[in-house]
Amino acid sequence: MAQATMAKPKKKVSPSKNGSTAKAKKMTYYFGKTKTEGRGVSKEILGGKGANLAEMTSIGLPVPPGFTITTQVCAAYYDAGKKLPEGLLASITKNVKMLEKELGKKFGDLKNPLLVSVRSGAAVSMPGMMDTVLNLGLNDKSVRGLADATDNPRFAYDAYRRLINMYGNVVMDINHHLFEDEFAKIKRKYKVANDHDVPVEGMLELCEAYKAVFKKESGKPFPQDPMKQLELAVEAVFKSWNTSRAVKYRQLEGIHGLLGTAVNVQSMAYGNMGEDSGTGVAFTRDPSTGKNQFYGEFLINAQGEDVVAGIRTPLPFSDMKKWNKSVHKQLLDIKVILEKHYRDMQDIEFTIERGELFMLQTRTGKRTGPAAVKLACDMVKEKLITREEALLRIPADHLTQLLLPGFDPAARKQAKVLTKGLPASPGAAVGKLAFTAEEAVERTAAGETVLLVRTETSPEDIDGMHCAAGILTSTGGMTSHAAVVARGWGRCCVAGAGEIEINQKSRKALINGRLLTHKDTISIDGSTGEVYLGELKTIQPKLSGDFSTIMSWADKYRTLKIRTNADSPADAKKARDFGAEGIGLCRTEHMFFEEGRITSMREMILAEDEKSRRAALKKLLPFQRRDFEGIFKAMKGLAVTIRLLDPPLHEFLPHEAKAQKDLATELGVPVSQIKRRVKQLHEMNPMLGHRGCRLSISYPEILEMQVTAITEAAIKCKKQKIDIAVEIMIPLVGTQTELSILRQLTEETIAKVRQAKKFTGKLKLIIGTMIEIPRAALTADEVAKDADFFSFGTNDLTQMAFGYSRDDISGFLPDYLEQGVLLVDPFVSIDQTGVGQLVEFGVNKGRQTKPDLKIGICGEHGGDPDSIDFCHRVGLDYVSCSPYRVPIARLAAAQAALRHPKK
Amino acid sequence: MAQATMAKPKKKVSPSKNGSTAKAKKMTYYFGKTKTEGRGVSKEILGGKGANLAEMTSIGLPVPPGFTITTQVCAAYYDAGKKLPEGLLASITKNVKMLEKELGKKFGDLKNPLLVSVRSGAAVSMPGMMDTVLNLGLNDKSVRGLADATDNPRFAYDAYRRLINMYGNVVMDINHHLFEDEFAKIKRKYKVANDHDVPVEGMLELCEAYKAVFKKESGKPFPQDPMKQLELAVEAVFKSWNTSRAVKYRQLEGIHGLLGTAVNVQSMAYGNMGEDSGTGVAFTRDPSTGKNQFYGEFLINAQGEDVVAGIRTPLPFSDMKKWNKSVHKQLLDIKVILEKHYRDMQDIEFTIERGELFMLQTRTGKRTGPAAVKLACDMVKEKLITREEALLRIPADHLTQLLLPGFDPAARKQAKVLTKGLPASPGAAVGKLAFTAEEAVERTAAGETVLLVRTETSPEDIDGMHCAAGILTSTGGMTSHAAVVARGWGRCCVAGAGEIEINQKSRKALINGRLLTHKDTISIDGSTGEVYLGELKTIQPKLSGDFSTIMSWADKYRTLKIRTNADSPADAKKARDFGAEGIGLCRTEHMFFEEGRITSMREMILAEDEKSRRAALKKLLPFQRRDFEGIFKAMKGLAVTIRLLDPPLHEFLPHEAKAQKDLATELGVPVSQIKRRVKQLHEMNPMLGHRGCRLSISYPEILEMQVTAITEAAIKCKKQKIDIAVEIMIPLVGTQTELSILRQLTEETIAKVRQAKKFTGKLKLIIGTMIEIPRAALTADEVAKDADFFSFGTNDLTQMAFGYSRDDISGFLPDYLEQGVLLVDPFVSIDQTGVGQLVEFGVNKGRQTKPDLKIGICGEHGGDPDSIDFCHRVGLDYVSCSPYRVPIARLAAAQAALRHPKK
Repeated sequence: MAQATMAKPKKKVSPSKNGSTAKAKKMTYYFGKTKTEGRGVSKEILGGKGANLAEMTSIGLPVPPGFTITTQVCAAYYDAGKKLPEGLLASITKNVKMLEKELGKKFGDLKNPLLVSVRSGAAVSMPGMMDTVLNLGLNDKSVRGLADATDNPRFAYDAYRRLINMYGNVVMDINHHLFEDEFAKIKRKYKVANDHDVPVEGMLELCEAYKAVFKKESGKPFPQDPMKQLELAVEAVFKSWNTSRAVKYRQLEGIHGLLGTAVNVQSMAYGNMGEDSGTGVAFTRDPSTGKNQFYGEFLINAQGEDVVAGIRTPLPFSDMKKWNKSVHKQLLDIKVILEKHYRDMQDIEFTIERGELFMLQTRTGKRTGPAAVKLACDMVKEKLITREEALLRIPADHLTQLLLPGFDPAARKQAKVLTKGLPASPGAAVGKLAFTAEEAVERTAAGETVLLVRTETSPEDIDGMHCAAGILTSTGGMTSHAAVVARGWGRCCVAGAGEIEINQKSRKALINGRLLTHKDTISIDGSTGEVYLGELKTIQPKLSGDFSTIMSWADKYRTLKIRTNADSPADAKKARDFGAEGIGLCRTEHMFFEEGRITSMREMILAEDEKSRRAALKKLLPFQRRDFEGIFKAMKGLAVTIRLLDPPLHEFLPHEAKAQKDLATELGVPVSQIKRRVKQLHEMNPMLGHRGCRLSISYPEILEMQVTAITEAAIKCKKQKIDIAVEIMIPLVGTQTELSILRQLTEETIAKVRQAKKFTGKLKLIIGTMIEIPRAALTADEVAKDADFFSFGTNDLTQMAFGYSRDDISGFLPDYLEQGVLLVDPFVSIDQTGVGQLVEFGVNKGRQTKPDLKIGICGEHGGDPDSIDFCHRVGLDYVSCSPYRVPIARLAAAQAALRHPKK
Repeated sequence: MAQATMAKPKKKVSPSKNGSTAKAKKMTYYFGKTKTEGRGVSKEILGGKGANLAEMTSIGLPVPPGFTITTQVCAAYYDAGKKLPEGLLASITKNVKMLEKELGKKFGDLKNPLLVSVRSGAAVSMPGMMDTVLNLGLNDKSVRGLADATDNPRFAYDAYRRLINMYGNVVMDINHHLFEDEFAKIKRKYKVANDHDVPVEGMLELCEAYKAVFKKESGKPFPQDPMKQLELAVEAVFKSWNTSRAVKYRQLEGIHGLLGTAVNVQSMAYGNMGEDSGTGVAFTRDPSTGKNQFYGEFLINAQGEDVVAGIRTPLPFSDMKKWNKSVHKQLLDIKVILEKHYRDMQDIEFTIERGELFMLQTRTGKRTGPAAVKLACDMVKEKLITREEALLRIPADHLTQLLLPGFDPAARKQAKVLTKGLPASPGAAVGKLAFTAEEAVERTAAGETVLLVRTETSPEDIDGMHCAAGILTSTGGMTSHAAVVARGWGRCCVAGAGEIEINQKSRKALINGRLLTHKDTISIDGSTGEVYLGELKTIQPKLSGDFSTIMSWADKYRTLKIRTNADSPADAKKARDFGAEGIGLCRTEHMFFEEGRITSMREMILAEDEKSRRAALKKLLPFQRRDFEGIFKAMKGLAVTIRLLDPPLHEFLPHEAKAQKDLATELGVPVSQIKRRVKQLHEMNPMLGHRGCRLSISYPEILEMQVTAITEAAIKCKKQKIDIAVEIMIPLVGTQTELSILRQLTEETIAKVRQAKKFTGKLKLIIGTMIEIPRAALTADEVAKDADFFSFGTNDLTQMAFGYSRDDISGFLPDYLEQGVLLVDPFVSIDQTGVGQLVEFGVNKGRQTKPDLKIGICGEHGGDPDSIDFCHRVGLDYVSCSPYRVPIARLAAAQAALRHPKK
């Protein structure tokens, strides 16, 4: 959905005004056999996890009973200055009582104690970002009760030490290394290597040691009252909503406007009660390819977090059949039930306690771009969803992944495969090794391309993962942190490549006997899991039939035309292949930088008078004509919008002493002349200087040369029976008079060329302007009088409306995102609130003068789905974006049309 | 009147669409005894001169009869591609016939030929800018008729040679030097020094020589048909409307929107018919001081252009009594008639032909600022005009002249008076000598202050006159070109300082034996005519009672409050003396540049962490507090708007290697650290970079220090029973969130200081923002939620709305003014069409949220009368300008209120 770029100040967004009424709202929702209150209650209130637990319970799936504390309670907690609202504890107590009754267990009971998990769950999934406490309800007494009830004292004490550890870590903020050190001591004492080889006595000692750590670090003994444990754990979950990690994650993911997190208190089911227990996660279809195949992993005798944390490498779902055939079948049945119910691929968590299956969670599964396309097509075929739903379900941005290059098969053959891991997130990435997130961030900022290579990743690594070209881990499976996050972003990832030994300290990796350092380059293939030595050549992917299907559906629904930004025949051709319906921006300045041209360009700039300027321009004319001819031919009659020279002239001159000397020699002028001109052209704020149409006002001969080249190329094409449709675009117009003067000059020049070439046929040549100066948007009614079309240059419009220099925004953008002044970089997604008003003025005032004025956008926003949605709503005729984003724009335009049908 | 900044494209402004209907319009208006058609017809149609000739004829003054061709004909001429419209010649012929009948003379007659002058005359006076041809109607035959009729062959041939010269120059574009060379030859031949000593034979020879020059240069003989002469002369006047000189003049004077020039064809009256003839110009009151005293000059036996051209120095009006008592009295009577009729001081031209007075022209007289004030006050006393009219009649900008410094009497006493000329335009100017207009332009551009020193000035010198600090001429009187133009601009001028011998070629001036070059500095006093050697100290003027009267009237009518921009107690004091009602902009950054502070400021910027930044800021705190205290005391409870730190930090660091080294030594840090930080802070477009409130978002401790200093100073004043009213202004806000965050921090800081100082009394401390980012104006409804006031920063708003960097606009502004893209520099007068919309959004949206929101403007537009008119109309509460412009703003605000009374 289109979202406003700007944050309201936080204190106003949180429903502080509702604080008092929030108290009156229902705070908890029970789910279980007794009753299920939350069915149909929105995710905004119950969180995704809570809502789905209620749903699953309702449709009869085996869910351990429990209750959900709403996100509104979290908001009220923050509104009250981090205080749990009145009445919450009473409500929790009531629910616990109900739970005790349903399960026949009692909180803190000596014989058969009720144990619960406490988990966060916001409306939008934030995997691993917030906190969880398991086994809550255990204390020095009830642990004995659990031991008795399960007849498994080792399990009971293991559960207790886990509780103390998690509780200490989550609620009291005690460093988990302190607990791990104690565990290591015990293991040394009992001379065992693995955790589960520690005998029951060891576990007992461990619990005591953990309690000692707890007391030492927190200053208080471990709380023995289960209700107190629960209260503090609930508060800890609320607190975890606003850790910097969680805030950062929401920022990166563009998640905002949420009330807070819900808290799910659920009776425990144990996957670690022995060899007949286990735990697992699964996707109802392959989240990487979209293939309709139940896709899961499980660990025997383990608790859920063991799978997600990626510490042990799990078994594939296919292995389950041997281990427990009935559960295996039960899960396959549940897949069908869930997909029918939710009409989408699900990501589930389950636990098998002594052979009995419990569903702990279901949610819509994250998927790669290719998977999203295949799932959407398949589900339409299966009549699960409509075409419209299919289109709306694919995040347009994720199509990038289908268009990403892969490795060249020939290069692949010759390359050395170092090792192979799991194909966790598709794509091909090449880079040097970076061993920590910080290193990845720093070296990327310094201009290097790096792969983040870690034993495992954790939420602390988010920054480094985001900037790396790809991620490679040595442990963890397809559902490990690295894999899930990477897929979400469409970042290439190979996970669990167990043959790699990583030494983070010495910044070295040993792969099958080969030692690699931060200086080495490797290539990883996220679609196969292969890791290659050195840099492999990449090639363009072949697009699937499903992709074509989605594109053809999108084309049917969208009303926006899609053009591309292309400066060369090759780019033009590529964009046409992706479905571009014209060129919305052909920048002519790039043409001047090529060999053989730049010298004449510089000669023109150095010219002391109009005559020598014209002489130099004359040399550039044939080059420009040839370029335009090539582009016209590639576009075969589709519209080509050519922007006349835009950047300030100094950009074309050399600024280094050596280059200046070379130029002087080449042109046969004293170097002092070049230095003088460079100095003369220097500007304090070149962005706001002598550029764009201002150049043509000062030096009309530049415009004349460019328009001559365009017209000559157009006539040449027409004489060869090649259709052309050219739109001459005058940049940086701020006043009608500029456009009026330059339009007249353009028309006169065209007429001169026609006369010189004796061409009297029809030429589709229209003249328009970019709307990129705020004043042009404000006076668009006047500007339109001399324009056949408008094209919004929202990059510059954003620069000037905000007063942000794109080149300098890095000085404060991080602070602005951090403090929520900006929710997204306004150069990535258009600021609909402010810049958007200027666009609307431009459209409305322009069409007030000329109702049929053709209007498009050619800034980089033209490839951003949210911005495309905005463009659709304000009534643009087309968007123009880079060739690779054309498919994204086609889909986003269709989604916009579906969301906002024209009346 | 308020004028739109932007030009409509020329072709659209000229009434091209009316071309066909223009033909149908009346093309000529006769004035004379037969009939006077033009009475009451507007200046827009008849031009100023034509309209006034018609008026004077109507009220019975002695005006030589003639007719006026309308400005609409001029427009039609240009619309038709420089072709005289159909029917014009017939209309001219008809009028000539009427003239012949009234005067009993005939065009081209052998006995008593009718001779006419052809003069331009636009709706707005453009002295010397367009062309005039006299004596038209003479040819080889009629010159003899004139000789017979006047019994003065020398006069007749002199008139003929003048016609050939002027006609050749104006109509055929023949260089006047070619004619002058021939005259010199004749004078050599007859061994005479002065023109009028050439005998009649010589004049006959001269006519032949002139005709030869005419034929050689134009390729055609001098036309003998008087109607042909007239036709070509009319066309030449039309052409003179668009010479670059005339275009430039209109640009400088801000004249636009005119149709063209009218042409006045008037029967000749001769001031050069002998010693009983003469010609003169006069003002009905003293245009320099406003004194009610007929103020004229005349030349005996001369034609009108001799006075204006400043070649001969004329006699004062008082001398006329001796020469012709009756004409002297007649002129004094006419003064009264004209002032009663026009209700204003008049500038007249007259000719005495053989003792008979003819009025050739009247128009409202240009006057200096002091004269304007005195005239207005006097005429109210005389009940000629009302107070409202008096206020509206003084160009607010011209008050500058009353406020201009004069020379210190002490310095004057000690200084050497080189010579004395006429006090042509008041003021005191100091500068080095520049001998040509080009030189003045170049040296001014290079940063020098120059005085333009010329024998006489001519319209070609306009550029140089405009940029010079003052003008000094060696010939010409109070009504010479130099004097009239300088007074119009309020530029200091001493004219006709005849002791100065100027050698333009060698760039030297000899004054009473002292040789001065371009390296010498002189001081000129335009109020006394004195010329001093060297640089004299200047002092502030004492303001007259009339000035106070005007100010008190202005204060009665205006509704806008006037504040000032002041950064120091001294400035604050000065502004209060001028009537400022508060400080609208106190820039805090200037305070940091002072000795003893800049080092701490730099230490703060170089700080690597918040702690050391806070330590450096702590050192700045007492300085800031003292500054604020001083300003609060000076303003005695009037509002003081303090803008928090605005410029980018790099502006405070030294950029030269030497200064960097010194700073390193002073701070005891390696110079590399300073270089690194300078490099790090470098921005591509600092205007759009990390500055304004963006600094406070990144470094809240800077804001905290400044607000602490403000609050402590305020509390200190209150404890001393001194009233304060402080408005803390947060600059460069683009989003509500910025303001919200910083407002909160400001409030918290104020609260902390109050607590620390144990102050519980009332403090008038409010918090607002500048609206200077387009986005802030567009979202002013949101921004207003956190603002107690708005202050428009229209400098930055203009930079961003136009995309013009103030620092770089000189690269294209001349081209833009030249080509009419801009009519005035938008940084001088606000662009009401574009930037104005943003201001209106800001006002309307801001008041939509807070109906009582206090709104002002603190950009430099706050002192520009047109911008003030705009501010009044959009409903601002106050304008703020530099101290010296406060009186201008008071008057401009009154004028705005009178022009646009609130409903």
